[in-house]
Amino acid sequence: MNTKHLKKGDELPSSSSGRVRFYNMRYCPFAKRTRMVLWHKKIPHDVININLKDKPDWFFDKNPFGTVPAIERDNDIIFESAVCNNFLEEEYEGASLIPSCKKQRYHERMLMDAFGSVIPKIHTIVTGQNIDEAIENFMKSFQHFEKEIANRKFFGGDEISMLDIHIWPFIQKISVFEEIKEMEILKKLPNTSKWISNMLTVDCVQKTHTVGLNKYLHDVILGEKVDYDYKIEDDPILEA
Amino acid sequence: MNTKHLKKGDELPSSSSGRVRFYNMRYCPFAKRTRMVLWHKKIPHDVININLKDKPDWFFDKNPFGTVPAIERDNDIIFESAVCNNFLEEEYEGASLIPSCKKQRYHERMLMDAFGSVIPKIHTIVTGQNIDEAIENFMKSFQHFEKEIANRKFFGGDEISMLDIHIWPFIQKISVFEEIKEMEILKKLPNTSKWISNMLTVDCVQKTHTVGLNKYLHDVILGEKVDYDYKIEDDPILEA
Repeated sequence: MNTKHLKKGDELPSSSSGRVRFYNMRYCPFAKRTRMVLWHKKIPHDVININLKDKPDWFFDKNPFGTVPAIERDNDIIFESAVCNNFLEEEYEGASLIPSCKKQRYHERMLMDAFGSVIPKIHTIVTGQNIDEAIENFMKSFQHFEKEIANRKFFGGDEISMLDIHIWPFIQKISVFEEIKEMEILKKLPNTSKWISNMLTVDCVQKTHTVGLNKYLHDVILGEKVDYDYKIEDDPILEA
Repeated sequence: MNTKHLKKGDELPSSSSGRVRFYNMRYCPFAKRTRMVLWHKKIPHDVININLKDKPDWFFDKNPFGTVPAIERDNDIIFESAVCNNFLEEEYEGASLIPSCKKQRYHERMLMDAFGSVIPKIHTIVTGQNIDEAIENFMKSFQHFEKEIANRKFFGGDEISMLDIHIWPFIQKISVFEEIKEMEILKKLPNTSKWISNMLTVDCVQKTHTVGLNKYLHDVILGEKVDYDYKIEDDPILEA
């Protein structure tokens, strides 16, 4: 199941017992983190897309904060991307995304949390008054990640890990900004650019690519009307 | 040890092997979360206060992001408040702050992460152009926490938990704003107000109260010169 973006007044589709239900917005970078984990671990799931501008009332019974991603399984509800991903990692088998070495595990967690202060700086590149200043602030806050990924395929080493997944949807957005606004950001980040190429070869990155992402960001940036369901029939579905 | 706020050019004090070193800024709400855990679990530690406006170069060797809190033990460095607190919880005995019930544990983690979107709204109460609008936005984002704490002593139940500690330093700031700016915020949050009274009876809350917090916030809000070391000799020290 992969619903259109449900809004106020739309009914909640009935659920299949035991099957994971994933509340999503197709262009939301936080939701995408969890979508990547679902695909990486090959967890069959139904996708309920939510119109975040006009949320159905029943969605607040699921998640009082009204945010995506949220994961539902029978009567368990989990929200907040890092917690959803931790839940999926703990509850499901399949390729692990968390380092077995304790030191490395703490290292990744610290960088995941530290990336939280990079996110608003990415946002400001598009919304801010002074683009050059915004890019400079982003570069400064991201410099440690650029250093960290030198001479490595992924942040986790030879295989992707939770940290790669945590960062990817936001860095991917930057490459779209570049196209739309003719900015040069990633060219100044050679290690990150190589990492992006490596990420694009990974199955869960390919499977979760939303066809209309460029169009969506373009429409948002230019203040045009957004079609959330654009080419939704092309979304890959992981049935079983 | 409880140093004055060290700045560029100041030397790093030599450390005692095996003893926890805590990098702090006395009025930083993120650092305070970790300070509360250190006191709650009665972990002896040295406090190295950092001048965040003029950081010593060696601090970036400890934490490349230059943020507090950071915890150092022998050659291990942990930064980011949630990760520091998790490290202390996992590595040290003493009263646990994480629920043993898995469902409750996930519930707390979700609320801890969700609180992340409340923090900028608290900040805007002081820095924003429209105070009434800022208070309304805070109220909206905090309403679930106000509901959640009805008829309970602490978020964790009868005893404080990591979620209480995660939230406390920010809600405490609001009570100071009220005094300084004559705003009425907490009066409209009766459950939270009761929770604040309960929190004030807890040992780790009392021991980590920084004498000059009101003066500090007052000076910041009015744009006056800040004395970070104000009455630093009154800070309680947990030696052994």
